[in-house]
Amino acid sequence: MQSRSDNRAVVLLSGGMDSSTCLWWVRAQGRAEVHTVSIDYGQRHRVELEFSARLSARAGAASHKVIHLDLTQFGGNPLTDAGVAVPRASEGQQVRTVVPYRNMLFITLAAAHAETLGIADLHIAAVRDDYRSYRDCRRAFYDGLERALSLGGSHDREVRIHSPFVEMWKTEVVRIGLELGVPYEETHTCYEGKRPACGLCDACVERIAAFRANGVRDPIEYEIEVEW
Amino acid sequence: MQSRSDNRAVVLLSGGMDSSTCLWWVRAQGRAEVHTVSIDYGQRHRVELEFSARLSARAGAASHKVIHLDLTQFGGNPLTDAGVAVPRASEGQQVRTVVPYRNMLFITLAAAHAETLGIADLHIAAVRDDYRSYRDCRRAFYDGLERALSLGGSHDREVRIHSPFVEMWKTEVVRIGLELGVPYEETHTCYEGKRPACGLCDACVERIAAFRANGVRDPIEYEIEVEW
Repeated sequence: MQSRSDNRAVVLLSGGMDSSTCLWWVRAQGRAEVHTVSIDYGQRHRVELEFSARLSARAGAASHKVIHLDLTQFGGNPLTDAGVAVPRASEGQQVRTVVPYRNMLFITLAAAHAETLGIADLHIAAVRDDYRSYRDCRRAFYDGLERALSLGGSHDREVRIHSPFVEMWKTEVVRIGLELGVPYEETHTCYEGKRPACGLCDACVERIAAFRANGVRDPIEYEIEVEW
Repeated sequence: MQSRSDNRAVVLLSGGMDSSTCLWWVRAQGRAEVHTVSIDYGQRHRVELEFSARLSARAGAASHKVIHLDLTQFGGNPLTDAGVAVPRASEGQQVRTVVPYRNMLFITLAAAHAETLGIADLHIAAVRDDYRSYRDCRRAFYDGLERALSLGGSHDREVRIHSPFVEMWKTEVVRIGLELGVPYEETHTCYEGKRPACGLCDACVERIAAFRANGVRDPIEYEIEVEW
């Protein structure tokens, strides 16, 4: 087994609220180096990738790697396919935004990059709100994936998937992020890819609720009028 | 749990000897439908992809899907990077041809495609010769990956990774393939991507040895003179 004394970490960064908070959280743990990975999966809103690069720089990440995996190949997904409408929260259909094993593929790609850096500690910002819809955002899944990654790496070493927020609701994550000084004005959430944000899609509705529960006004702009 | 009575299967096909034999083997199991998946990972020898398509058609596959994942993004690999020499068998360095988690990524991509087809049975042609060098070609790894795929899928269902040849040496696989009538003249093996094959790279050396051990002449041509 490789020594676990290595104090470097990789963070999977989407440019959204949760992963940005995760990046600041890892930084606060006193890691010697934090490296970020973002996935260019053919997302309709390319703004996510710009925000990821900017957030990495602002957090002082040692490197920022963009890995390309075109999920439009799998078809029929509203986050990548311009022909498919994004479901609204009121329709209760968040599950339709899933590409099979999307999260698993992203983590495995991050693990491959981490291995080339000699890093065994990965961080993923799944929150409790996610695993209602996404089975590959649950801790039981991460435990299984950790084992597969440890068994399948080029060397005999223990790979760790840290999921510091997996038992927290988004509201708690935002509270932590506000304490850590996460620049939420530079994060992107809207499923419609809009700036100002639409305020109506699932993602916007959840984001607004999380800020409101903390008694704080979200620093980003919305197309609709939001009461804080 | 989804019913296991579904009699359809997905086969990961590289266009090489082992996966072609696997395809014919699965066909012989009386599956109602066999679907093939090949990965375009930026391989230097594109001929693999042509052979995969041709073999799928010849085997009567219900569909053939090519999934793109550019492994050149990870760098420094002789199978994708024209600037890195392919190691010869005599150097005992087969391990240098590994991109971290390559096999794991390929299987997960195949699993994602299989899920869109509603198929839970995947077949992979790892042979005993592989796992000396590749940790993600061992059965223990497949057991771990099966569990991660079962936990992380969009539905609660058991995903199976079948590895019929994992305890066999390449020689035994060729023996089975010869019995099943696999058209080995339409398979590609040479790491150098050559037709006629170089006969000197690791892959050619192993292939020649497997045919020789079966007392059969390999139907493909070699650049060098090979004694059968």
